[in-house]
Amino acid sequence: MNYSEAFLIAARQLIDAGRFIDSKGWVPATSGNFSARLPEGNIAITVSGKHKGQLQLDDIMLIDADAHSLDGKKPSAETVLHTSLYKRFPDIQSILHPHSLNATLISRIFKSEVVLEDYELLKALCGITTHESRVVVPIFANDQHIPRLAEQVEQYLDKHPVCYAYIIAGHGLYTWGSSVQETLRHLEALDFIFDCELRLYGVKN
Amino acid sequence: MNYSEAFLIAARQLIDAGRFIDSKGWVPATSGNFSARLPEGNIAITVSGKHKGQLQLDDIMLIDADAHSLDGKKPSAETVLHTSLYKRFPDIQSILHPHSLNATLISRIFKSEVVLEDYELLKALCGITTHESRVVVPIFANDQHIPRLAEQVEQYLDKHPVCYAYIIAGHGLYTWGSSVQETLRHLEALDFIFDCELRLYGVKN
Amino acid sequence: MNYSEAFLIAARQLIDAGRFIDSKGWVPATSGNFSARLPEGNIAITVSGKHKGQLQLDDIMLIDADAHSLDGKKPSAETVLHTSLYKRFPDIQSILHPHSLNATLISRIFKSEVVLEDYELLKALCGITTHESRVVVPIFANDQHIPRLAEQVEQYLDKHPVCYAYIIAGHGLYTWGSSVQETLRHLEALDFIFDCELRLYGVKN
Amino acid sequence: MNYSEAFLIAARQLIDAGRFIDSKGWVPATSGNFSARLPEGNIAITVSGKHKGQLQLDDIMLIDADAHSLDGKKPSAETVLHTSLYKRFPDIQSILHPHSLNATLISRIFKSEVVLEDYELLKALCGITTHESRVVVPIFANDQHIPRLAEQVEQYLDKHPVCYAYIIAGHGLYTWGSSVQETLRHLEALDFIFDCELRLYGVKN
Repeated sequence: MNYSEAFLIAARQLIDAGRFIDSKGWVPATSGNFSARLPEGNIAITVSGKHKGQLQLDDIMLIDADAHSLDGKKPSAETVLHTSLYKRFPDIQSILHPHSLNATLISRIFKSEVVLEDYELLKALCGITTHESRVVVPIFANDQHIPRLAEQVEQYLDKHPVCYAYIIAGHGLYTWGSSVQETLRHLEALDFIFDCELRLYGVKN
Repeated sequence: MNYSEAFLIAARQLIDAGRFIDSKGWVPATSGNFSARLPEGNIAITVSGKHKGQLQLDDIMLIDADAHSLDGKKPSAETVLHTSLYKRFPDIQSILHPHSLNATLISRIFKSEVVLEDYELLKALCGITTHESRVVVPIFANDQHIPRLAEQVEQYLDKHPVCYAYIIAGHGLYTWGSSVQETLRHLEALDFIFDCELRLYGVKN
Repeated sequence: MNYSEAFLIAARQLIDAGRFIDSKGWVPATSGNFSARLPEGNIAITVSGKHKGQLQLDDIMLIDADAHSLDGKKPSAETVLHTSLYKRFPDIQSILHPHSLNATLISRIFKSEVVLEDYELLKALCGITTHESRVVVPIFANDQHIPRLAEQVEQYLDKHPVCYAYIIAGHGLYTWGSSVQETLRHLEALDFIFDCELRLYGVKN
Repeated sequence: MNYSEAFLIAARQLIDAGRFIDSKGWVPATSGNFSARLPEGNIAITVSGKHKGQLQLDDIMLIDADAHSLDGKKPSAETVLHTSLYKRFPDIQSILHPHSLNATLISRIFKSEVVLEDYELLKALCGITTHESRVVVPIFANDQHIPRLAEQVEQYLDKHPVCYAYIIAGHGLYTWGSSVQETLRHLEALDFIFDCELRLYGVKN
């Protein structure tokens, strides 16, 4: 298949993002998946089962807005979680889903949501201009039946249209932004704040 | 000695695996040992006493299925733990034995076994398709008498034929897979989950 | 604009400092800012909104002693915190402001100040010659209104003229020194001691 | 000054050791010092005040067995702690003194000594052949008066001739071996075990 230049640029950004995210230890084994929306509406997304710190161009595939493969490669089962976010939020152009230790632990300790307040680093989230903000990251039960999991997410987002990220319990984080770079910024900021919250409130007694 | 091409490929994989494993801090000092089974049944395995993050080709030796040296180099005392796993499991082609902090601490806190449940990352283990699985990693007492330690392992595996890994207390983890790459995936996933378990349940009070 | 050689040298030092500081994880997302005073009294300082681990020459700007841009680039809102320290302390030539996890957590646990005593590493602070010293790092409430925050700092420093660093709560650390290199030394030493204090006294019960 | 080839080889080993030790975070700021004894009895040792992760050849100096500078460079105040160990132990050829977080915390929690037992990694210490060993690492009070501190160490070693390392409280670890490589192995093993002990017994309640 001949890929467009926009695809190749997006693929390179996802490959580089994978190197960065893996250097933080946030995609152990072959976990996680990453995507970027192309100008015409199709989506570049990581294929299933590859180590995200060692991605090659061949590990990025092209799907349409409904998660159908356009190049014959096999997408991850979780692809529909990406496409439904892209449909809901027309301004987002990238979604990153790592499996960090902090996101996993947050989901074990803060059951249905974690509330982030009074951190300067909240300002790294697009649109937030003060530490005196209140950002809620919802936590959804894990489910191998992805359409059902996607439905859980949809129902939450219907009621809470301003949302920066969600956690799937015992699984990982989904976050998004207007570019791969902005999404990485959201990811770095959220993981840092999760780390703080865990160290402050995470000890069970 | 003239080594086969299969040996040289396996040796390169073990050297690279060592670099990766050391970058995680899982083989401090000269601890750990790694092996890969060759198509004809002999085994490439790290020699004794070298730093696993700085392996050279000369640090990989060839043994037969009964742990006899085929190239005059001196194998680690723990070599028989490798050969007995290869005899038991015809499908496995690699065994990795690091000494990670997490595996060591797990053995101190969870005495005879650690049970891993409700982690998406369990799916990184070959054959596991849902987080709703229950993986038991047994913990054996450490013993400098390796045949006795091997016997302990054998007796456990006779009763529990489905097993992904075991821990030797105060010592380290053994895990295996159908290739070096798959075994690394098992290792990364297990250490991540051990880390979660320690942070959730590891504080003594 | 034509920058002076002194500017280019200082810019290179700030870029390298950013790489080092980011390698420690102390400037997540696009947080932090760094500056160096030039011989003639102007100041090289990082522009707003860039990742401090990936700084390029174009990400360093020139301001005068009153925080006015001299090259048309947009300085960070926190620039006045830099210029007021330079005015107060004629001997300091660099200021580094990272957002480390340890500084953030210290501010959550030790409310108005943290007292550092009996660490050999205190000797890394300029002028300290024995571990039997007592170094106080004040913690100020975070405030998006930077002139008000600067005033808080000024009032403290009027009363406590010997001061190596301060923390803005939930935000990060400011530290300074007679060169970029010395300021990095102060930063490394302080973060290490913060880490010790957190592990010794940081667990809430 | 013309340095001998033996000096240059030793200097290179110390420089490389510094890079490795710094990569672990064990020599923050300009802390720590390292030495290697040359065949003729003189000693290559790091000069005072340099970052141990960025050592250059010029940062290594030559002293005699009584800690006198032989090349006009200024040795660290702690040099006599090195020379007294070399005099006592004729077989050791290297001494490494980092300031790790773990050694510092160990000294805060385990007052006069830490006892290491039942770790496979004890076998990384020269002469130890089983995890069923008991290794005592004494902890001495910090003292800026180095001759007095050295005397404290001497008195302990007179009574306990088998000793692998000691900790100076709130300061760091001294360990030694028959080569730079063996001393690094001792260091890696000890820090790993300190880390285990801290996570198991280090939480204050």
